[in-house]
Amino acid sequence: MEINIDLSCIMVIFGGTGDLTHRKLMSAIYNLSYQNMLPDNFAIVSIGRRVFTDEEYREQIKKSVSKYSRFPMKDEKWDEIRSKVYYLDFDFKDNDGYIKLKKLLGDLDERYNTHGNRIYYLAVAPEYFEPIVGKLKFHGMNTHKGSKRRIVIEKPFGKDLKSATYLNEKITSAFSEDNIYRIDHYLGKEMIQNIMVIRFANLFFESLWNNKYIDNVQITSSEMVGVESRGGYYESAGALKDMIQNHMFQLLSLIAMEPPVSLHTEDIRDEKIKVFKSIEKVTPEYVMENMVRGQYGRGKIGDKEVVAYREEDKVSPASNIETFVAMKLYIQNYRWVGVPFYIRTGKRLASKSTEIVIQFKSMEKLLYFKEFDNLEPNLLVIKIQPKEGIFFQINGKKQGVENRIIPIQMEFCQNCPLENNSPEAYERLLFEVMKGDSTLFTRWDEVEYSWKFADTISEVWKNKQPNYPNYDSGSWGPKESDELLKRDGKFWWNV
Amino acid sequence: MEINIDLSCIMVIFGGTGDLTHRKLMSAIYNLSYQNMLPDNFAIVSIGRRVFTDEEYREQIKKSVSKYSRFPMKDEKWDEIRSKVYYLDFDFKDNDGYIKLKKLLGDLDERYNTHGNRIYYLAVAPEYFEPIVGKLKFHGMNTHKGSKRRIVIEKPFGKDLKSATYLNEKITSAFSEDNIYRIDHYLGKEMIQNIMVIRFANLFFESLWNNKYIDNVQITSSEMVGVESRGGYYESAGALKDMIQNHMFQLLSLIAMEPPVSLHTEDIRDEKIKVFKSIEKVTPEYVMENMVRGQYGRGKIGDKEVVAYREEDKVSPASNIETFVAMKLYIQNYRWVGVPFYIRTGKRLASKSTEIVIQFKSMEKLLYFKEFDNLEPNLLVIKIQPKEGIFFQINGKKQGVENRIIPIQMEFCQNCPLENNSPEAYERLLFEVMKGDSTLFTRWDEVEYSWKFADTISEVWKNKQPNYPNYDSGSWGPKESDELLKRDGKFWWNV
Repeated sequence: MEINIDLSCIMVIFGGTGDLTHRKLMSAIYNLSYQNMLPDNFAIVSIGRRVFTDEEYREQIKKSVSKYSRFPMKDEKWDEIRSKVYYLDFDFKDNDGYIKLKKLLGDLDERYNTHGNRIYYLAVAPEYFEPIVGKLKFHGMNTHKGSKRRIVIEKPFGKDLKSATYLNEKITSAFSEDNIYRIDHYLGKEMIQNIMVIRFANLFFESLWNNKYIDNVQITSSEMVGVESRGGYYESAGALKDMIQNHMFQLLSLIAMEPPVSLHTEDIRDEKIKVFKSIEKVTPEYVMENMVRGQYGRGKIGDKEVVAYREEDKVSPASNIETFVAMKLYIQNYRWVGVPFYIRTGKRLASKSTEIVIQFKSMEKLLYFKEFDNLEPNLLVIKIQPKEGIFFQINGKKQGVENRIIPIQMEFCQNCPLENNSPEAYERLLFEVMKGDSTLFTRWDEVEYSWKFADTISEVWKNKQPNYPNYDSGSWGPKESDELLKRDGKFWWNV
Repeated sequence: MEINIDLSCIMVIFGGTGDLTHRKLMSAIYNLSYQNMLPDNFAIVSIGRRVFTDEEYREQIKKSVSKYSRFPMKDEKWDEIRSKVYYLDFDFKDNDGYIKLKKLLGDLDERYNTHGNRIYYLAVAPEYFEPIVGKLKFHGMNTHKGSKRRIVIEKPFGKDLKSATYLNEKITSAFSEDNIYRIDHYLGKEMIQNIMVIRFANLFFESLWNNKYIDNVQITSSEMVGVESRGGYYESAGALKDMIQNHMFQLLSLIAMEPPVSLHTEDIRDEKIKVFKSIEKVTPEYVMENMVRGQYGRGKIGDKEVVAYREEDKVSPASNIETFVAMKLYIQNYRWVGVPFYIRTGKRLASKSTEIVIQFKSMEKLLYFKEFDNLEPNLLVIKIQPKEGIFFQINGKKQGVENRIIPIQMEFCQNCPLENNSPEAYERLLFEVMKGDSTLFTRWDEVEYSWKFADTISEVWKNKQPNYPNYDSGSWGPKESDELLKRDGKFWWNV
């Protein structure tokens, strides 16, 4: 592959001993290296509070990469990055640490010829975002004439509009918007990057992508797991903030956006934000009527009995946090007026999958639709995980001498032959940061709009006590979720 | 399956010792019986010139069915029809034979309670069509008050418009149009019956089925075999009359027809005939410019050296009969104006397949079609034989960190899991004759129009000597066939 962009840089990872770094970031770096996609002029400095030598840290990373990488651990591949990994221990609020760091980065710049380019990756708990950014600024490490200084912020970006705005002000006081990379790792997933291609490089779809042909859109992200070890965090978040406000909204915007002026980052982001602006105003009445929340009770996942949310570790026995959300939205523009977008997400549901179902309109009651009264509409399903691919359902003649019409399924599954061969989201995302392309990251106004939306709903829900738990583990959520569609004469497709 | 129609009848097969009866008709009857689709009140009388007892004939049929049926030969299944098969020997022009036949049919009517219903199946050489029909009429066997008397005519139905008209007059003087079943066995094929369903039971396709979205249509029926033992017949026919005038024209009409008023036979046929009427007038200049003929020379099919057409058995060494035809047609109506339909058929070509490629228009040079200059258009391929199914080609993101767009193929193959499980065309066709549904047979005006068309071309070609052989066995035909599309900036898709 030819990239005519200077990728040289030092990646500075705050939170170098954390889960994200061990499981995702280092594997992503190894994988990029494995595919010869890392620049020659490159180094990594990891920062944590525990004390390790560089060699000790490298060994730990090697173990994690062996475990989590999609490629096998090969010594000759590992050796290409091993010596470029450095470790520093200091408290993220400690000035001396930053002085050490600045000195080290200066030395490495010379050794690796990285021209002062930095990627600061904040793989830390959100409470450290502000102090780290503040210190980087205080020590003059946030900008440098002639060098690229980028910052990557992990989710969650705030916990409501107010905190997100505050955080954003702090970050933008140190880094300009085009150097800020707000992670929504969903955007790094293969099939999410494919949505725009499917829509805008196929006459088949582009021609039918509007309310004349589409009956409704269903975006589902279902998990079978419960809250697991994340009870502490989840108690202050819930499904609305953990999933809808970020990931699901990003899916919605990619599915519903108008064709952008060009494929440049800002043109695409401009169209995504227009989708958010076009969502029908959410009043308290609208929330009560069209949004469903739920919390899982006990139940069975497969053969296994599982506990209720309120019985989980680090969760209050009287918790009113939602583990399920379903909603109906309308996008008020010429393309989509009248087409309901149904969105749902939840934990402890019947299956694990993220997918978008485009249900096309039924045909008029003529010819075959007159002759047979149970014909199904055409479906296009974009499967995001765990399967990655495209699925069609059309009508065809049943094989045989009788005249019968049946649904025919056609599937293109991208990761089916080799389950692990699909690039990890973080590979793509890190590579994009190095390239300086922020298309797969969220712009501030996207974050702002989605928080406004989430806050409105939270506010309404806060004022009305829910009756939890209201769905069994292993089901498809509270019955109100099905009723939401049934009212409109529709149902959830669990394809 | 419930059929509320009285299927009881005696099937009278003229040509009972012939190839068609042994290979196709009897297997079809056995297969229908195997699936419990034959009426209880049923018998078969086969007529040939050679002398056999019923038992001898039954044994021969059993052998052929064992060999050619898609179901295994099971004694309990065979016994259900064995005793209902009778054999008579007489010359088709011999009055005494018909007297014997009439007597036998009368006896069998009583024994099998078949109410005088008859299906006369003319599985004989075309020169016998007229004499047999004449004798049936002469002996008063063509009609009978309160009984159904149907006649099935195998192809070819005439060898030009004049002979077809003459034959038709003879037949219609004895049988009414709704009792005449003109066989085009292509119409019995699964995927051809599926064309209308695909078009009219799927919003996906119905919405895009016109010149706004479709760039061109390519109908190909290619064979790898040569003329084999049929040289005698083929020398008086050629690809135009053997394939284009009947099978290919039927495919064309199903692909291009307007939605019919209803699914009733005559409504469908009315729309098919409108397609023929809308074909742009074929002038001699048009033929010279837009129609390509060819005759195979020597070459290789796979590893095997094969002889030229002129070297084949029962073929003149100076034969000017075409074994290949390619043409461009325009259908002059609002749906199709400007969309070329390319049709080609030939023997000794590079692969064996019958398929229809719908090539959708390329997208405007915007976004991905601007960014990448080699993107392919969307394709829908209806595969008729040997594979039966639907094939899509769309554009998708190439898996991986790079930004690349590649064609993605999706296939629904109906007969792939069990190569032999697809019903034989003749099963469906015989069943339709018993039901009295002639949708899958050709009406006289369809035959008439297609002969008019073929005659015009023949006439032009007759006046200009071809330069044969002009393509190698194992190729895709003469180079003029490729040039026909290249001139329009297109090419044949060999999917």
